[in-house]
Amino acid sequence: MQQQISIITLGVADLERSRRFYGEGFGWSPVFQNHEIVFYQMNGLMLGTWLNASLEADMRPGLVRPGAFALGHNVATREAVQPLLEHLAQHGGRILKNGMEPPHGGFTGYVADPDDHAWEIAWNPAWPISPEGYVSFGT
Amino acid sequence: MQQQISIITLGVADLERSRRFYGEGFGWSPVFQNHEIVFYQMNGLMLGTWLNASLEADMRPGLVRPGAFALGHNVATREAVQPLLEHLAQHGGRILKNGMEPPHGGFTGYVADPDDHAWEIAWNPAWPISPEGYVSFGT
Repeated sequence: MQQQISIITLGVADLERSRRFYGEGFGWSPVFQNHEIVFYQMNGLMLGTWLNASLEADMRPGLVRPGAFALGHNVATREAVQPLLEHLAQHGGRILKNGMEPPHGGFTGYVADPDDHAWEIAWNPAWPISPEGYVSFGT
Repeated sequence: MQQQISIITLGVADLERSRRFYGEGFGWSPVFQNHEIVFYQMNGLMLGTWLNASLEADMRPGLVRPGAFALGHNVATREAVQPLLEHLAQHGGRILKNGMEPPHGGFTGYVADPDDHAWEIAWNPAWPISPEGYVSFGT
């Protein structure tokens, strides 16, 4: 089976509020949008933000309570972490943890999007990122 | 800001149980594992399965209840969807919805991993997948 994730779909309560966070916070441009979904072309996969009611209807009966998770966006320098956390907080996000050095190295903080999806913003010098945004494991 | 997701980290209660689901269900090989985390090299990003207690400690205070989401794995043919759902269910997963034609086309079903992370298994002929597993938007 190909080691491949095609899409991450996030359930959102307010599509416009979510679009502001991803569009003005992260600065990402949609590749498609309509009245119930926005798609972003990412590094070899899609990110979708879909109205909660539609996502729930699609996966009905679905999950009463989804398991814990976090998405991660790595940046090129240690100095870029905290300003991005604060920029995202100014565009509808909520800082969960300010940037700090975790025991496993690097520099990292967490911010929740307007619908409580956690994003880790991290500088991880061990994991190379290609110009196209493809991330590889390294130690 | 690069349109890039570096990692998806899933919180899991039992690392070995989760490793069986991803290893024997999806057939994916770890690139790294220790007593609290397993990393899989995916299509331009990493998938991590991390003990819930460690993920919670890392993102403390974190989120009382994370927002809804689903991950997606697309397959090459319509006929591949249902057998994969059933194979995953035989390896610790739980089918949420059997394969069917959604209103937006294709063929899709949902399965939860052992820690209640939803995976959509889909055939979506509109979205090309490169030999390396990179997925592109199409209509």
